[in-house]
Amino acid sequence: MQVQVFASVNEISSAQLTNKTVIVIDVLRATSTIISALAAGSASVMPVETVMEAKAEQRPGDLLGGERFGRKITGFDLGNSPVEYTENIVKGRRIILTTTNGTRALHKAMRADYVLAGALLNASACATAAAELRRDVVLLCAGAHDRFAAEDGICAGLFIELLQANVKPSVEADDLGTAMLGFYRNNASNIHEVIRSGITGRKLLKMGLKQDVDACSAIDIFDVVPRLSGDSLVR
Amino acid sequence: MQVQVFASVNEISSAQLTNKTVIVIDVLRATSTIISALAAGSASVMPVETVMEAKAEQRPGDLLGGERFGRKITGFDLGNSPVEYTENIVKGRRIILTTTNGTRALHKAMRADYVLAGALLNASACATAAAELRRDVVLLCAGAHDRFAAEDGICAGLFIELLQANVKPSVEADDLGTAMLGFYRNNASNIHEVIRSGITGRKLLKMGLKQDVDACSAIDIFDVVPRLSGDSLVR
Repeated sequence: MQVQVFASVNEISSAQLTNKTVIVIDVLRATSTIISALAAGSASVMPVETVMEAKAEQRPGDLLGGERFGRKITGFDLGNSPVEYTENIVKGRRIILTTTNGTRALHKAMRADYVLAGALLNASACATAAAELRRDVVLLCAGAHDRFAAEDGICAGLFIELLQANVKPSVEADDLGTAMLGFYRNNASNIHEVIRSGITGRKLLKMGLKQDVDACSAIDIFDVVPRLSGDSLVR
Repeated sequence: MQVQVFASVNEISSAQLTNKTVIVIDVLRATSTIISALAAGSASVMPVETVMEAKAEQRPGDLLGGERFGRKITGFDLGNSPVEYTENIVKGRRIILTTTNGTRALHKAMRADYVLAGALLNASACATAAAELRRDVVLLCAGAHDRFAAEDGICAGLFIELLQANVKPSVEADDLGTAMLGFYRNNASNIHEVIRSGITGRKLLKMGLKQDVDACSAIDIFDVVPRLSGDSLVR
């Protein structure tokens, strides 16, 4: 199995996704939120790119979620914080979600054979699912405004570690994958600190969103693997 | 001191170089070749982007060097192999050099306050020189055709390790810098293997250029720090 890592959304073209499984990684916070929402019983999460699209898509019973500049969008039901997506609020509901980097990455990925949402929260389950799909894997890091983000990179490294353990005969990582695997291994006992010190982590902490940073730093607390089906992510 | 890492030439805009020291890193092979040429007594190395420019710049006594598709350019005196640049050939001569990624990166960097050529060959000397220049540092990896290359990334990680040892009170790396430092630390005893396994290393080995891969994998064998002065790199 070949595994490629892309450091941010703009680096990849749709042509590079043919016959692939793409795992979109946006640890802070979109894919962590999507995983949390589906784990809490949400029926599905539809990623859209703009606030207008989100409003246009909303049908009775749907919830609008997302952020701009890290904050909940005016008139929306929910922000982009995984801790908001609790069972009493989201159970059975479809969520229309728009965020700055993550939902854009999910849209970019749509041409792939399979699109999964990955984060630290579901790393083992997601790696196992990807291994079972028997395609080469693209780890598409959402990044932060077209730049590499440490939390997505270290998560990509963890995915490669897990895929290497799961996939026979071998997993061949590209150069950025090799680098991310080294980054992960050098900081495996230290992931929370890496995330807090990264560009997005520092921004969220400054905004008072420590609870989000902590919630998104937990590893393997869910076995939910969001998978794109049509235009929405489902369990 | 702030240290930023860029994974390939296209990721950076000239505006991001204002008031900075840029270390251009193209381990395989342009900056390794430039260091080797100046260490062997070459008067200067002028990086140019095209074969035509190189020919137009040539004055009596100058040597033309460089590669396209990894091979020496027809009619040129030298390729892009550091082992070709020996004292008996280059001593006292100006070299006009054009390569696929490295000389492009050097051109992109020209707006910075200081431009240095870095590689494993001169890592400690180059990091010391950068520390003395008292500017924030950009580590510009040449990469391979606009993608990250492992050899440049691990070299960037080594530079951050060395800068952290040299610069007081502190060196703050950006997210990609943090990742490259982890990548380096995880593979510090294993750099030669990382380089041989990377996309460029494999390509060069396939072309029979093992000697170049080996020559470029040596750490700190030169204390030469090529610095851009006008349009050429000098000691």
